Amino acid sequence: MTENKLTPNGRIWIDTEEGPFLGYGRIELLEKIRDTGSLRKASIEMKMSYQQAWNLINQMNDRIGEPLVLLSRGGKGGGTTVLTEKGEKAIQAFHRFNELFQVFLKETNIEF
Amino acid sequence: MTENKLTPNGRIWIDTEEGPFLGYGRIELLEKIRDTGSLRKASIEMKMSYQQAWNLINQMNDRIGEPLVLLSRGGKGGGTTVLTEKGEKAIQAFHRFNELFQVFLKETNIEF
Repeated sequence: MTENKLTPNGRIWIDTEEGPFLGYGRIELLEKIRDTGSLRKASIEMKMSYQQAWNLINQMNDRIGEPLVLLSRGGKGGGTTVLTEKGEKAIQAFHRFNELFQVFLKETNIEF
Repeated sequence: MTENKLTPNGRIWIDTEEGPFLGYGRIELLEKIRDTGSLRKASIEMKMSYQQAWNLINQMNDRIGEPLVLLSRGGKGGGTTVLTEKGEKAIQAFHRFNELFQVFLKETNIEF
């Protein structure tokens, strides 16, 4: 027994060959887009600029080769922002991966 | 099948109740101390200041409650720096944890 409890910890993400694709932050952005239907509202909740959120979504769409989010710059009322079925599947896949990871951490015993 | 290969990725570390304890960087520092027998040489190879390395080691020793590295400020030739048996065990435990994590990543299939 060690005096201090040692806890395994970590973080996970998904890469494509072109680089980072999905991590905790981007999943949160996708979920906020799904829940608000608005890139503007989602970006405000994420404390990032509209442009930054727009760029992240475009990068994700590019890297997966199929839109996770449909974006259109709008007029007076702002554009429309729609999470696609592919986007919803990406969110689910990430959560499954993360759940497996949390189980892995929980089952790992660090002792020395 | 997705067009772009999706690769699960991540990083792990070990916490104590007081905060971060051991990650890839600190393990590298411990290994360089073991291999060079010198905190000065190890800190140079790690591109960190001597003081920074000293503080990291002291923090680790404090958090585990038993020295991983024995430090002494030296005179002319510099102090002595010795990785303890506990330090060697910490290195081995971290590598085992990381190997299990790499297996976990390899066995995880991301598809959506």
